[in-house]
Amino acid sequence: MARKPTKQDKFSFGLWTVGWPASDPFGDPTRTPADPWDAVAELAELGVWGITFHDDDVIPFGTGDAERRDRIDRLAEACRAHEIVIEMVTTNTFTHPVFKDGGLTSNDRGVRRFGLRKILRQVDLGAELGANIFVMWGGREGSEYGASKDFKAAFDRYAEGIDTVAAYIKEKGYDMRIALEPKPNEPRGDILLPTVGHALGLIANLENGDIVGVNPEVGHEQMAGLDYTAGIAQALWAGKLFHIDLNGQHGPRFDQDLVFGHGDLTSAFFTVDLVENGFPGGGPTYDGARHFDYKPSRTDAGRSVWDSASANMATYLALADAAKEFRADPRVQEAMEYAGVFELARPTLGAGESLSDLLADRTAFEDFDAQSAGERDYGFVRLNQLAIEHILGVAR
Amino acid sequence: MARKPTKQDKFSFGLWTVGWPASDPFGDPTRTPADPWDAVAELAELGVWGITFHDDDVIPFGTGDAERRDRIDRLAEACRAHEIVIEMVTTNTFTHPVFKDGGLTSNDRGVRRFGLRKILRQVDLGAELGANIFVMWGGREGSEYGASKDFKAAFDRYAEGIDTVAAYIKEKGYDMRIALEPKPNEPRGDILLPTVGHALGLIANLENGDIVGVNPEVGHEQMAGLDYTAGIAQALWAGKLFHIDLNGQHGPRFDQDLVFGHGDLTSAFFTVDLVENGFPGGGPTYDGARHFDYKPSRTDAGRSVWDSASANMATYLALADAAKEFRADPRVQEAMEYAGVFELARPTLGAGESLSDLLADRTAFEDFDAQSAGERDYGFVRLNQLAIEHILGVAR
Amino acid sequence: MARKPTKQDKFSFGLWTVGWPASDPFGDPTRTPADPWDAVAELAELGVWGITFHDDDVIPFGTGDAERRDRIDRLAEACRAHEIVIEMVTTNTFTHPVFKDGGLTSNDRGVRRFGLRKILRQVDLGAELGANIFVMWGGREGSEYGASKDFKAAFDRYAEGIDTVAAYIKEKGYDMRIALEPKPNEPRGDILLPTVGHALGLIANLENGDIVGVNPEVGHEQMAGLDYTAGIAQALWAGKLFHIDLNGQHGPRFDQDLVFGHGDLTSAFFTVDLVENGFPGGGPTYDGARHFDYKPSRTDAGRSVWDSASANMATYLALADAAKEFRADPRVQEAMEYAGVFELARPTLGAGESLSDLLADRTAFEDFDAQSAGERDYGFVRLNQLAIEHILGVAR
Amino acid sequence: MARKPTKQDKFSFGLWTVGWPASDPFGDPTRTPADPWDAVAELAELGVWGITFHDDDVIPFGTGDAERRDRIDRLAEACRAHEIVIEMVTTNTFTHPVFKDGGLTSNDRGVRRFGLRKILRQVDLGAELGANIFVMWGGREGSEYGASKDFKAAFDRYAEGIDTVAAYIKEKGYDMRIALEPKPNEPRGDILLPTVGHALGLIANLENGDIVGVNPEVGHEQMAGLDYTAGIAQALWAGKLFHIDLNGQHGPRFDQDLVFGHGDLTSAFFTVDLVENGFPGGGPTYDGARHFDYKPSRTDAGRSVWDSASANMATYLALADAAKEFRADPRVQEAMEYAGVFELARPTLGAGESLSDLLADRTAFEDFDAQSAGERDYGFVRLNQLAIEHILGVAR
Repeated sequence: MARKPTKQDKFSFGLWTVGWPASDPFGDPTRTPADPWDAVAELAELGVWGITFHDDDVIPFGTGDAERRDRIDRLAEACRAHEIVIEMVTTNTFTHPVFKDGGLTSNDRGVRRFGLRKILRQVDLGAELGANIFVMWGGREGSEYGASKDFKAAFDRYAEGIDTVAAYIKEKGYDMRIALEPKPNEPRGDILLPTVGHALGLIANLENGDIVGVNPEVGHEQMAGLDYTAGIAQALWAGKLFHIDLNGQHGPRFDQDLVFGHGDLTSAFFTVDLVENGFPGGGPTYDGARHFDYKPSRTDAGRSVWDSASANMATYLALADAAKEFRADPRVQEAMEYAGVFELARPTLGAGESLSDLLADRTAFEDFDAQSAGERDYGFVRLNQLAIEHILGVAR
Repeated sequence: MARKPTKQDKFSFGLWTVGWPASDPFGDPTRTPADPWDAVAELAELGVWGITFHDDDVIPFGTGDAERRDRIDRLAEACRAHEIVIEMVTTNTFTHPVFKDGGLTSNDRGVRRFGLRKILRQVDLGAELGANIFVMWGGREGSEYGASKDFKAAFDRYAEGIDTVAAYIKEKGYDMRIALEPKPNEPRGDILLPTVGHALGLIANLENGDIVGVNPEVGHEQMAGLDYTAGIAQALWAGKLFHIDLNGQHGPRFDQDLVFGHGDLTSAFFTVDLVENGFPGGGPTYDGARHFDYKPSRTDAGRSVWDSASANMATYLALADAAKEFRADPRVQEAMEYAGVFELARPTLGAGESLSDLLADRTAFEDFDAQSAGERDYGFVRLNQLAIEHILGVAR
Repeated sequence: MARKPTKQDKFSFGLWTVGWPASDPFGDPTRTPADPWDAVAELAELGVWGITFHDDDVIPFGTGDAERRDRIDRLAEACRAHEIVIEMVTTNTFTHPVFKDGGLTSNDRGVRRFGLRKILRQVDLGAELGANIFVMWGGREGSEYGASKDFKAAFDRYAEGIDTVAAYIKEKGYDMRIALEPKPNEPRGDILLPTVGHALGLIANLENGDIVGVNPEVGHEQMAGLDYTAGIAQALWAGKLFHIDLNGQHGPRFDQDLVFGHGDLTSAFFTVDLVENGFPGGGPTYDGARHFDYKPSRTDAGRSVWDSASANMATYLALADAAKEFRADPRVQEAMEYAGVFELARPTLGAGESLSDLLADRTAFEDFDAQSAGERDYGFVRLNQLAIEHILGVAR
Repeated sequence: MARKPTKQDKFSFGLWTVGWPASDPFGDPTRTPADPWDAVAELAELGVWGITFHDDDVIPFGTGDAERRDRIDRLAEACRAHEIVIEMVTTNTFTHPVFKDGGLTSNDRGVRRFGLRKILRQVDLGAELGANIFVMWGGREGSEYGASKDFKAAFDRYAEGIDTVAAYIKEKGYDMRIALEPKPNEPRGDILLPTVGHALGLIANLENGDIVGVNPEVGHEQMAGLDYTAGIAQALWAGKLFHIDLNGQHGPRFDQDLVFGHGDLTSAFFTVDLVENGFPGGGPTYDGARHFDYKPSRTDAGRSVWDSASANMATYLALADAAKEFRADPRVQEAMEYAGVFELARPTLGAGESLSDLLADRTAFEDFDAQSAGERDYGFVRLNQLAIEHILGVAR
């Protein structure tokens, strides 16, 4: 039986997850979602630590100021009552038709200004509610056709937009960092920041890049056939892993947003292993929210919606236990040693070794026995099989 | 009939392309390739401007010093005789079994030192032969299993290796820049720098990143389902597009290395359009080699091998002509104007507009007519149809 | 300039194409589509020959009998007035929540009976309106999880449903055949008949399979990374290509439903070549509708919607012209001869050759010169380059 | 700790698996494989029940008759000595350059006759050695370019070839059935029978299709993004699942041939569940070999090669145990009942119900409460979560 989640596990959910009405491109809604404040109460009951939301999740587009304030207050009150943290907020710049060609990179300057203002307004709200992560997912920043975007201008505008938001955060003195969320496609044919890598690349060209990092989503990277764990590892190595979105996906196809672990289970194990146990040889660690961005299946209703939320946490906890045992297993340690996993932490050049020293070292090249080194057994399959057996719970 | 290529077209080929013996994972070689110097002569005949090579393409692994020098001299002599430029070189750190777990990120430190030395030796040779681009493709830098790499250590070693090579280039005063070539997978299950984005991300963390850029390959990006043109556009925007590898691919599957244009023809058109005509609104341009990294099909032999090399250039030139006409077509200009393509170059904030100004501008948000803006017709399909008709040669 | 379409071109459109309100999983509708009868008038103006529709496209779910009849009559009248053929109809068993687990293979028997009745009703309507193709797309027949379907029961029910519809058509004496439309995924995680092949396989196990064939859609096969032309070729070879759905797609990702030719243009060329010119060595041909199942981009509005419909036809006609010239080009004929394309039509065994004869023929095996045969140049790249140059309009 | 395999588990391995020299498209061989007879001894030691082989695995292409006989006898003797069954054989019509355009569908008729004879020779050998499955994988039957194959002729020749082999088996009275192995691509750009479905479709058009079925490989179906379990389920339903190839793959990319379970672990669970426990509601079952077609990783050497063979079996057995417990778990039975899984076995029409009866049943349509039915909770996520917890070993 899986452990029950506690606040210490730092599990959080987007309100749009359990709040999804279950419509899809070929189907009408199958459910009436709970109101945000009621969802907070339900999630608290399940052991959740925090929630996150797009502005429009709580305050429908076009809501007047009084009603807006009232809805915010009801949400804040529910969070207080149930000791739920609002750990991250984000802005919806994709649902309304106005954003059909993008929020920050729409060809229409009026739309870009509107998008920017909508984002800044949500920054304020996030700060008010204590969120210190501000996610920016540019799902509409992209195109279907090669000629419909001037890519140079698009990257200029994207950078301008993010830098403006970052500047605003700094000007206001908010304790908040921005996390860009990449995705390769859907709803646009091709999205401007398709992977974690492209986002890291863009950040390097920002003026206010110091407070900008990434929020990689499991399914988004897997839609490009990429290894999610390697992606968050690069972000962590670069000091840029500010937030994560956990869910499930079956490779390149539409965005499935399955329960975490209901896609590639082994990949989920290695993700949890990295998040919980860090790199084998130490280094930067992630201590942010374990945030789930999934959709309860369209075929589920009633209690099943909440059960599916719990399923994310139950699987995470079971994988966390398996990962702890995996690391602690002496056979695993021996197999990692045998495979040279720890050896990789040792710099290739010696301490103080100069380029001339390296070039002068005949053991490194002229006298190196490449044939023997080519015959080395790394035993990677044995190591992976140990992982599989820990996942399957048969390693004991 | 397609134009004949000239040296001004700056077409170059890897010697490993026409030199591929046509073996594959399920098949033995079907051809005996020409010697490198003979290939140079043949390529010159076809109108090629430059060649590129891995060390092992010219000097088989393990060749002694005298024979090595002799082979280098024969290649250099052939290039002189046929006025062929050696525009780029690269190192093979993937074929020999010693590199089975990587060159710069192998878990085996001895292998890493050997790999680094092999690379530095080829840097010297490249400099000697006048190459000013040094490509690094880390095809073996990766893994198949989540536990076989300490990713933090792997990125540390990768950065160390690249920085060491860059430091060497600087120390020697070579007129040479490094171009990293990403690939998502094959031969490793997952490769450490899977896309242009990940490479740009890594470069941002290098000490000597100023002389490090990227060498994106059409097929490699398309293996991850990504838009190649958008990828090189981001690199160009970031000042990092140092070289390109042109070929053809049919989406996520094994690396096909088809003739340029024999994969996604429309994508090839937009790539050529960007390379030849630049961004619609101006900005940085690419003036490096038009380099083909393809494989003559295993079913071709004899003259067909050389014909297939010509096919790359013929298609490129035909697309270049079509792209010139596309840009010059007044209907295209009108459609781009209508679509707002040029409008994207205008900054979202006004000249000198402060954050307070933006927040105070009621036309930007409070009084903005989102509904009307949401009804705007961008006419992207009409613009794309014009592109298709220019590709098809029926736009006149 | 592309030719104008005429009725002889047999172009048809689903009413749901130009009638799509442009909502997607992340966005609200951006357009108010025309009424069906008005769409008929517009399409007629563009040179369209026929239309097709789901029941719900014309008669919203739940419409009462009188209103239903009225809407049917208005549609029929518009078709008469504009000389538009209703060449195919199909049933919507996917939009309403009742079908969330399938129409014919829902785990809920009541739903299956309801789905079957809804289908039969549309069969009657199709027959009344003169349609002789009845498409069945089972977009909801599938699952996301391995345990939620008893696959044996699912195939039993699927076969029962199709056989029942076919039996009804026969019983009624309708001049109508069924065409199954495969799709790998979306909206379900995995759909029961994911490809043309799986549908052909199922048909072989039907009782009334004689009037059941397939309706392959370009994008659906390409979502599985498959060659659409090869797929329809197998269906044609098997006597089962009853209908086709033309559109555009960029490989494995969400269902894009782009304009025909706005995805993989070269694949579109070979599809048109097969449909218009048949197999190189003769054989069964397709003479059904050239049916477009695309979506006008969400960023288009007003006249652009109708322009995008025209784009499908313009591209088809341009490709048809190119394909005619391709076949007629003596260089192409020579290259096909050289490549052995025509030789493949010759049976491997001689006329009247028995197994013993074959085994006794030493020239076939013992004395066969495999090495020489292995060195044969097929020249496939040259042949393909000719195709590319015909597509590009530079072959003349 | 995983169970030890026994002969009763019916595990078999291709000799080419542990016999792979570990070369790949970018790398030279890293290992010298054991001789076939020694491999038999090793495999027997691991608990293996049977082996399979291509002719060329045991008898290198071009071996003379005497040496051929000697090698066959050594293999047969080793199998006898170690009580190893030769359960399947197959022919290599892909490695030698002669087959570069196919074995049965090469454009070159001489090659086709040679290929057919090579196949028939291996049929005889298989029969002699007691194999009763003959696998045909047409890895070279395909093309890269739309014009290089006359698809009609190609399917004719493919059918002719298979029918000839089947006729020969019947004529000889061998107790042997043919199993076609589909694959979407690699080594050819597109392969003629890309999926289980396409093979089932082809079989329906054969003259001797009664003894022809399929041999689906996990990785091959997953390379097209398809659900392997659903694929073998359709084959089983059609009475055509003659053999299976188990291994691991990470979706659309090159053919990885990982250890079974080292790709998509959850999919592997449901595959084992179907193979071991059959359909939830009963029906045809598979009782053939549990055959592994994997490649020991190129980074492994020595004992690790054999350990990796064991890993396939260990994972299979662990999943088999988990699947047994899953089916026996009362919560699972309850959840399946709740989800309507068993209800799907009930025909949609009543016993003896005619079409008129159905049409007359107002409860089926006119009076059916679609809204309520649309609100039904299927609870599929809960059911899947139970599966996940059984896989993880935390369900107890």
